[in-house]
Amino acid sequence: MASLKSRLEHCVSPNALRSYLAEFISTFIFIFAAVGSSMSSRKMMADATLDPSGLVAIAIASAFALSVAVFISANVSGGHVNPAVTFGMAVGGHITIPMTICYWISQMLGSVMACLLLKVTTVGQHVPSHAIPQEMTGFGASVLEGVMTFTLVYTVYAASDPRRGSLGAIGPLAIGFIAGANALASGAFTGGSMNPAYSFGSAVVGGSFKNQAVYWVGPLIGAAVAGVLYDHVVFPTHQAPPSLREIADGVGGV
Amino acid sequence: MASLKSRLEHCVSPNALRSYLAEFISTFIFIFAAVGSSMSSRKMMADATLDPSGLVAIAIASAFALSVAVFISANVSGGHVNPAVTFGMAVGGHITIPMTICYWISQMLGSVMACLLLKVTTVGQHVPSHAIPQEMTGFGASVLEGVMTFTLVYTVYAASDPRRGSLGAIGPLAIGFIAGANALASGAFTGGSMNPAYSFGSAVVGGSFKNQAVYWVGPLIGAAVAGVLYDHVVFPTHQAPPSLREIADGVGGV
Amino acid sequence: MASLKSRLEHCVSPNALRSYLAEFISTFIFIFAAVGSSMSSRKMMADATLDPSGLVAIAIASAFALSVAVFISANVSGGHVNPAVTFGMAVGGHITIPMTICYWISQMLGSVMACLLLKVTTVGQHVPSHAIPQEMTGFGASVLEGVMTFTLVYTVYAASDPRRGSLGAIGPLAIGFIAGANALASGAFTGGSMNPAYSFGSAVVGGSFKNQAVYWVGPLIGAAVAGVLYDHVVFPTHQAPPSLREIADGVGGV
Amino acid sequence: MASLKSRLEHCVSPNALRSYLAEFISTFIFIFAAVGSSMSSRKMMADATLDPSGLVAIAIASAFALSVAVFISANVSGGHVNPAVTFGMAVGGHITIPMTICYWISQMLGSVMACLLLKVTTVGQHVPSHAIPQEMTGFGASVLEGVMTFTLVYTVYAASDPRRGSLGAIGPLAIGFIAGANALASGAFTGGSMNPAYSFGSAVVGGSFKNQAVYWVGPLIGAAVAGVLYDHVVFPTHQAPPSLREIADGVGGV
Repeated sequence: MASLKSRLEHCVSPNALRSYLAEFISTFIFIFAAVGSSMSSRKMMADATLDPSGLVAIAIASAFALSVAVFISANVSGGHVNPAVTFGMAVGGHITIPMTICYWISQMLGSVMACLLLKVTTVGQHVPSHAIPQEMTGFGASVLEGVMTFTLVYTVYAASDPRRGSLGAIGPLAIGFIAGANALASGAFTGGSMNPAYSFGSAVVGGSFKNQAVYWVGPLIGAAVAGVLYDHVVFPTHQAPPSLREIADGVGGV
Repeated sequence: MASLKSRLEHCVSPNALRSYLAEFISTFIFIFAAVGSSMSSRKMMADATLDPSGLVAIAIASAFALSVAVFISANVSGGHVNPAVTFGMAVGGHITIPMTICYWISQMLGSVMACLLLKVTTVGQHVPSHAIPQEMTGFGASVLEGVMTFTLVYTVYAASDPRRGSLGAIGPLAIGFIAGANALASGAFTGGSMNPAYSFGSAVVGGSFKNQAVYWVGPLIGAAVAGVLYDHVVFPTHQAPPSLREIADGVGGV
Repeated sequence: MASLKSRLEHCVSPNALRSYLAEFISTFIFIFAAVGSSMSSRKMMADATLDPSGLVAIAIASAFALSVAVFISANVSGGHVNPAVTFGMAVGGHITIPMTICYWISQMLGSVMACLLLKVTTVGQHVPSHAIPQEMTGFGASVLEGVMTFTLVYTVYAASDPRRGSLGAIGPLAIGFIAGANALASGAFTGGSMNPAYSFGSAVVGGSFKNQAVYWVGPLIGAAVAGVLYDHVVFPTHQAPPSLREIADGVGGV
Repeated sequence: MASLKSRLEHCVSPNALRSYLAEFISTFIFIFAAVGSSMSSRKMMADATLDPSGLVAIAIASAFALSVAVFISANVSGGHVNPAVTFGMAVGGHITIPMTICYWISQMLGSVMACLLLKVTTVGQHVPSHAIPQEMTGFGASVLEGVMTFTLVYTVYAASDPRRGSLGAIGPLAIGFIAGANALASGAFTGGSMNPAYSFGSAVVGGSFKNQAVYWVGPLIGAAVAGVLYDHVVFPTHQAPPSLREIADGVGGV
């Protein structure tokens, strides 16, 4: 009981409140760039259909903005910026359940606010939401989103690992880059969300919840698998990093 | 009085003069790339209308050039390269008022010179200035520019914070990346200036001051809010960085 | 004999198994982004023919994903992500022959799985495989791929070199960037593979082994030359890094 | 006399020879990517005329490849990769005249070899050389190239400065990024060379020396000015870095 009470108190400590604000701001920044770049690109095309250059615009905006969003919140909230990442961290025991819920709320609010701002200031431009092409199945799309979220959360775990040494300095860039790469890979298929808050915010403001489940089920499962695999298989937390020289030389092999 | 005199003397010290020169050079570099890439892209299109690939060109040029502009002036002038950033720093008490004015002048001069050089050497190509589409209101555009400048100045504060640890090394990249991401998000709407010197320089040389107020009011307010929020709410300066382990794991959580 | 037995035991140690898994995951991530971005771009073009914006999409996806793939496996397996890199490391004596074979198998599996996932989830979209234009000879294409792989493996050696100092932190970015630059340079000619696992996986799933030899012979020879040249000529391992100040100033000249 | 003899001996020391080889390899890598991406983009367009997406391809290839070229040669030769940079370093007294000449020869050879390889392996595709549009004057183009080379060499000086602290780790990225940004800014005007070896190599193999002077005069003057300004005005070498806190806060202000 004492434990429960102290846990809940922990959730409203000044540091915790600061971390919610940081997650709100960072998610806002990421979603603003991702959704805004999609709206800007569509406005520039005669028929609002994206071609590869529009896809490049969205992917670069996402990669750059996510790098920055993680960078600015890194020392406050851990730079999750994504309910799936927070879930993956919860599965690994790196954040408590009550805190997870508060993080989720902050992230969803940030996403909705970003989409709303874009809709209002651009005077009624359509806010595009995630959807899958006709020939794809919801299951296939979930798998695709799940695998991509796995790679994203695995990268977040790697970037947060103090055993990474001096390479850790580029962690926020790595997280942004994997989001950008996956957005390019899946752009014509699922749209490359990997982030339930992203899909939720654009659906709320864009007014279409079609295929919404795809962007929750896949990412949450992928995130959980990434957390378990990283902590228990590839980099067991109870041991020091293997001396790479015993295996093979390469980057990080000091 | 002694204080005022010493403050003004401070403004003409060799180190201060060096910092004005550094701001001039850095702003020149950034504006040259941002405006030049817009001119180059327009020249390559039959009807000088940008499509998403032209937007990508401008955004990457802005992101890369701002990263470099901040990098090269970081240890001399703090790498502001933007009157809104200097204003945001002044609001937080990180630079004196007289110095702020001198920074502004250096930045405006750098911007005008960059636009002038492009106009003269390219023999009369049109220098495009910022403008908003017909359906948008000046208020909406100001809000959009203000929010984007908020995110930029917030990132500058984060990048300048010594509590950031080893992540600080990628600070100049983060600043450039947020400018690029926002340029992609707002390219078809306000043009993504976030920098009054940018809008001023291209307006002076391009000869159109329409909507100029949009690019001053929004950014200055956004910058001020960012400074106050960062210093007093998210990262109060009087306290050590919260140990992230108490909240949640993630990037920066060492 | 004892040596042979201990070598083979070494290949199935927990650390070794972890490194195979890391190579599998990293190669999967890279190939997924590289092949997926090509499929996404083609789907967005009317006639599935790439234009320069599609090439940019593929190159950025490859650069970002390879940076991340190297980053996340750096401290486990050395971040090879490429049979040619592993071969280049084997030539330099940085990894044993039995381990090399296990790395190769992991990388090939990762590549095939990534292509298979894309084919299945996108419901039968064509998986493009590497091929050379009609006017080029297999020999010329091998030379081109070989030279590009040389530059990639040389960069991996440089990034793994502890004598690189603080610059080492950006090593994974450098490796991703050289892959992206070369993909842009050779996109219309050989497709810029530099990675036998990449060409193998897309050939297996795409069903076309035409020109496959080009993507094995060139890269393996280029990788071997890079290893020998780096270790024995440019940076002989038996000596301390030359004090740069004796030669010329420049980056890294501390 | 003893001094002259020792200087010449210095030029053929093992470390000096290694640095020539490093400059050759690095220049080769940069020119291969820059010229190859231009050839690939042109091959993909119906009429071989570049549009903004082709410009983006060339700029990203240049930025990425130059970052890598500087990174891999940083601890051997200082990572010049450009006769103008070497000249700028010679003006500042950071490299001797005989060494400068040897660096130039290595860089020119690297550039010619890269263009030759592309011409031969692609079976006679045209190697594009730098040229200026009809309406521009040679003087204007020289000024443009000179100013851009000034910014490049200034960035190299900043990246080589040990007083840059932990920011120094991203130095090679900054150098690549400024080249990419300037290439986007001037792509439709002078082509954005900033590197006499680049213009020389593509002219030799492409067979057109028209406007060649533009790409030598401007860059060499710009480089010299950058060296003098950095060492003697902005960052005088005889003094410690100004404590930024006296001036203004910002990035690097620790």
